[in-house]
Amino acid sequence: MYSIGIDIGSVASKAVVFNGKKVTAKVILPTGWSPKETGEKILEHLLKEEKVERNQVKAIIGTGYGRVALSFIDKKVTEITCHGVGAHFLDSEVRTVIDIGGQDSKVIKLDDKGNVIDFLMNDKCAAGTGRFLQVMAHALEIDISELSEVAQGAIPENINSMCTVFAESEVVSLMAEGASKESIAAGLLQSVANKTYSLASKVGVENKVFFSGGVSKNSLLKEYLGKRLGIEINSSDAAQFIGAIGAAVIGYK
Amino acid sequence: MYSIGIDIGSVASKAVVFNGKKVTAKVILPTGWSPKETGEKILEHLLKEEKVERNQVKAIIGTGYGRVALSFIDKKVTEITCHGVGAHFLDSEVRTVIDIGGQDSKVIKLDDKGNVIDFLMNDKCAAGTGRFLQVMAHALEIDISELSEVAQGAIPENINSMCTVFAESEVVSLMAEGASKESIAAGLLQSVANKTYSLASKVGVENKVFFSGGVSKNSLLKEYLGKRLGIEINSSDAAQFIGAIGAAVIGYK
Ligand code: SF4
Repeated sequence: MYSIGIDIGSVASKAVVFNGKKVTAKVILPTGWSPKETGEKILEHLLKEEKVERNQVKAIIGTGYGRVALSFIDKKVTEITCHGVGAHFLDSEVRTVIDIGGQDSKVIKLDDKGNVIDFLMNDKCAAGTGRFLQVMAHALEIDISELSEVAQGAIPENINSMCTVFAESEVVSLMAEGASKESIAAGLLQSVANKTYSLASKVGVENKVFFSGGVSKNSLLKEYLGKRLGIEINSSDAAQFIGAIGAAVIGYK
Repeated sequence: MYSIGIDIGSVASKAVVFNGKKVTAKVILPTGWSPKETGEKILEHLLKEEKVERNQVKAIIGTGYGRVALSFIDKKVTEITCHGVGAHFLDSEVRTVIDIGGQDSKVIKLDDKGNVIDFLMNDKCAAGTGRFLQVMAHALEIDISELSEVAQGAIPENINSMCTVFAESEVVSLMAEGASKESIAAGLLQSVANKTYSLASKVGVENKVFFSGGVSKNSLLKEYLGKRLGIEINSSDAAQFIGAIGAAVIGYK
């Protein structure tokens, strides 16, 4: 038997098939305009890819902001719970999850069983989220996926404004004054690291720390964040999927 | 004898000549890239227009965020103090100044002599400032000065996001879903009124209330804000100049 976890994020939708022991398939698609359609497409995709029949699936669990739009799921579970369970499944020593997604960021504290004991979430302000980096990459005329590479080795320019809107103007001014793209990109990653540090400090960070969400693919940001927190930060290729993994693990039980 | 007050704001620079009794000349220019050059241009402009010689001016006072760049002034005074003095000069019954400028907003409480007894300022977040309206007018493909007129009589669309960045996406979605520009514009003005209400509530609002700053020219916003606060809101053509007026009044003493 299998379970399926579907995490409909604001920007990317992630889903996995779980056989009770391990993840046997995963898929990621842009969420686009319709979480409902995306969710259906993702399910179809997964079943086909994994050659799984619908009656072999004991439960489909939905999570993420778009979970409310999914009509075919058996249960909805909050992102916070799913992230906790998913991180604990990947590494049972994780006590802090730092997740930066496309439009929000959260810090979750776990006990040794993967239960959530505290968390803090920012989904009101674009600063410190993937959206901030997207706006800034656009201002720098590079792709968001290139930020880390471009910034590598550069001395971070100081970005005074935390606000996405004001920081964008600052970036435009810095470019006009002749600052290099490299140093501005580094400064922007530093800015997100600082903002994340503020959020994490309020909850308190304990070893091991797991960095997840789409933004966790940004290796230099991970490095800055580790330095700022004075702690080693772990991540994995599955980091974008931990919400979906957590949902699937919950569904299997 | 005269005094001059110069208020270098983030977007607009305002200045007035004061003869000890009334304002005899005023000028407003975009601040542009260089507050220093703009300040010099404004001074030259004023002296010429008013046919005032430099030696007839007993003091030039600078205020606003760009005041630090002015080398020719006799003294720098904070915006908060100048706004208080300026509002009190225009109407001695004013006890609350609500100022919404290009990139900040503030609420100032005054005693019966125009002294500042409390204030709160937002200059970290673009939401609830002129910048928010500028971004939104751009998304609606209208000029910021047309917002009030376009929105007049429309039922405000509900804008869920306070954040400028997220609200911009919301506006784009609303337009795609066929919501009218009129109702979106009204919703955006309502959003700024709500944000201003939050700020004002923290300080406490007392009669008379004076609405100043560039955004105060927006008549529908003034109406919404008055309704939200449940209080009559006063303003005047000189509302954009109260910082400069306050500076000049201080300079004359
Ligand atoms: S600080 Fe900027 S990015 Fe954050 S809520 Fe305000 S407008 Fe949005």
